[in-house]
Amino acid sequence: MAVLGVGMTKFGKHPDKSLVDLFAEAFYEAFEESNIELKDIQALYYGNFVGEMTDGSGNLSGFMADEIGLRGIPAIRYEGACASSSVAFREAVRAVAAGYYDIVAVGGSERLYTAGTEIGTRALATAVDGVYEITAGLTFPGVFALAARLYSKKYEIPLEELREMMAMVSVKNHRYGAINPKAQFYGKLGDLKVEDVLNSRMISSPLTLLDCCPMTDGGSAAIIAAADLAEELVDTPVYVRGTGQSSAGGLFRQKEDIIRAIPRRKASEMAFKEANMTPKDIDFVEVHDCFTIAEIIALEAMGFFEYGQGCYAVKEGVTSIDGDLPVNPDGGLIGKGHPVGATGVSQVYSVVKQLRGEFKENPVKDAETGMTDTLGGDFGTLVNIILSVHRR
Amino acid sequence: MAVLGVGMTKFGKHPDKSLVDLFAEAFYEAFEESNIELKDIQALYYGNFVGEMTDGSGNLSGFMADEIGLRGIPAIRYEGACASSSVAFREAVRAVAAGYYDIVAVGGSERLYTAGTEIGTRALATAVDGVYEITAGLTFPGVFALAARLYSKKYEIPLEELREMMAMVSVKNHRYGAINPKAQFYGKLGDLKVEDVLNSRMISSPLTLLDCCPMTDGGSAAIIAAADLAEELVDTPVYVRGTGQSSAGGLFRQKEDIIRAIPRRKASEMAFKEANMTPKDIDFVEVHDCFTIAEIIALEAMGFFEYGQGCYAVKEGVTSIDGDLPVNPDGGLIGKGHPVGATGVSQVYSVVKQLRGEFKENPVKDAETGMTDTLGGDFGTLVNIILSVHRR
Repeated sequence: MAVLGVGMTKFGKHPDKSLVDLFAEAFYEAFEESNIELKDIQALYYGNFVGEMTDGSGNLSGFMADEIGLRGIPAIRYEGACASSSVAFREAVRAVAAGYYDIVAVGGSERLYTAGTEIGTRALATAVDGVYEITAGLTFPGVFALAARLYSKKYEIPLEELREMMAMVSVKNHRYGAINPKAQFYGKLGDLKVEDVLNSRMISSPLTLLDCCPMTDGGSAAIIAAADLAEELVDTPVYVRGTGQSSAGGLFRQKEDIIRAIPRRKASEMAFKEANMTPKDIDFVEVHDCFTIAEIIALEAMGFFEYGQGCYAVKEGVTSIDGDLPVNPDGGLIGKGHPVGATGVSQVYSVVKQLRGEFKENPVKDAETGMTDTLGGDFGTLVNIILSVHRR
Repeated sequence: MAVLGVGMTKFGKHPDKSLVDLFAEAFYEAFEESNIELKDIQALYYGNFVGEMTDGSGNLSGFMADEIGLRGIPAIRYEGACASSSVAFREAVRAVAAGYYDIVAVGGSERLYTAGTEIGTRALATAVDGVYEITAGLTFPGVFALAARLYSKKYEIPLEELREMMAMVSVKNHRYGAINPKAQFYGKLGDLKVEDVLNSRMISSPLTLLDCCPMTDGGSAAIIAAADLAEELVDTPVYVRGTGQSSAGGLFRQKEDIIRAIPRRKASEMAFKEANMTPKDIDFVEVHDCFTIAEIIALEAMGFFEYGQGCYAVKEGVTSIDGDLPVNPDGGLIGKGHPVGATGVSQVYSVVKQLRGEFKENPVKDAETGMTDTLGGDFGTLVNIILSVHRR
């Protein structure tokens, strides 16, 4: 299976664009570079998290398909919180691999910035357990604040030392977001200092505002085809080499395992196995940095660093664009923005552009294989995807 | 592919049971009759429509998997309004057919009765187009009231005459619901008269209260396995012979086509083709009678009657339990209840029980092949499933 084309809207605030508008804009960018006709697309896999709450809109996949010109095709909406469109992407790839379809469209859209802080915060909170956790007042900055404190305690790293390294993640990702024209913070916050992050408004101790990704509106899309067909259609197909998915219950079920991110360990092992690769084969990654500590946890669970060692990677420059493992060269969720249902396929967008050599603003040198990592909720849903310019 | 086991909660009001509790109860009923161990289940396909709005709960599939003892497996939440768990069922079947899994669990749960009329009505309205239709005040009784009037006009059947035949659908389905112990109206409304329906409270003219299905809490589940494996595990596997799915945009995009239900025509043709069957091969159906007129429209689009003729079927007794094509012998949505995300797999439950000869209260004589029909929104999502005791 291979990606023919990718598209995404600029991430940011789009009060005048509906969920359909945002997806359609991304879809047509992907469609234009795929050298196909609309009638060639046989199914739609669409990810959205909380359209019901932000836009009063559910049952969205049919509306998406119809309004972009794909009337009547099977159209499925996936919801796995922040991993919604990554789940959609993985299922789309597997449907094509099984021979059910030759060409399918995939993507997502979300309108959280326009929804405003109150509705947005309530909506995001639905991704944690609804019975025991939301009712106890747990929201996402709370989840990752707990994770940061647990990380500090368990790995015996003084909290102030950890906070500085977390701040370096924010500095790095904002630096890359500021030069990505599709990013929410394009042209902004590129010269952030560690002190700025440490001294910004406290959200949920020890996380400050600049440890957190923003609320975002946006859309993303990709067109997927069988590999042989892709080679006929486009000059540089990007192959889907492996995918993995796993799940978890609420935080109260995972307890201290949260900083080991067991579902991510399982999902990434599944993806590596399918790709017949190890972490050493990955040239760069786009990981789910919803908060600075989340990037550190992600890299460890994916096997790039030992547990308790990921925090030093950013400090030592390993995860910078010219390091051994560039992480989030598109700015990540922190710098690029996080329109939840669109985020997963926007990571695919960035990886595909890098592998094609089209990510001119912040290119990863000699990149041949990249990987995405998308986290839904507090590990309820976890998806990893490995993409490469090499078919096998 | 075959169904090993099925389960469902009693449909009705369950204020003390969470979405997880409802699904778990249905799941364990299905699991108990499947002769497998928990570790044999490799993935979960879960349908829910509006957990975010009724329970503040999204990202539900991981929580479901974890709490029923399936920690870490890939778990996907499907949302296609009222067809949510039918979409999940179809995708589960296709994943097993492709060889990705040997055994998977599928099902759904919803809490609309407990949510109350205001939240419930708002939540249900999110299944119509969110930009042009909800904002114009369109809710579901409105959609099907328009459909009934269009049906009357287009097929030149006086509205009062049509209303009487619609009322007969309600009488029939309530009669069957009243004898189904799992139904919301078990023991109730079994001796309804046509006049009772016509004279009940007007909801959206010409639909009265008894033309409408109720708000319901409930859960449903099924275990699916590869056919060879199923034959080793259970005495009476029920084979999935064909499935189909299609989509549509909002009502303003379908216009007068709504009473021809084009997505249903496409989806059922897809299912018949895959099963190598025609409507004549189907012994009985469980169709999506969210309103009385909806049952009539469904039967026509599925090919059982000509357009404009379905309304006479109920009058002539064709759709009664002893007619040529029993329709909704479990009471349908009107008599059994409609816990949206659970409805599709509850139809599968009823068909499986009938085919195994276990639906003692209202058995379809000599039933060998049955079909389900589930409608999401105003045709945004449409799924048909054909099940049979015969493998081929």
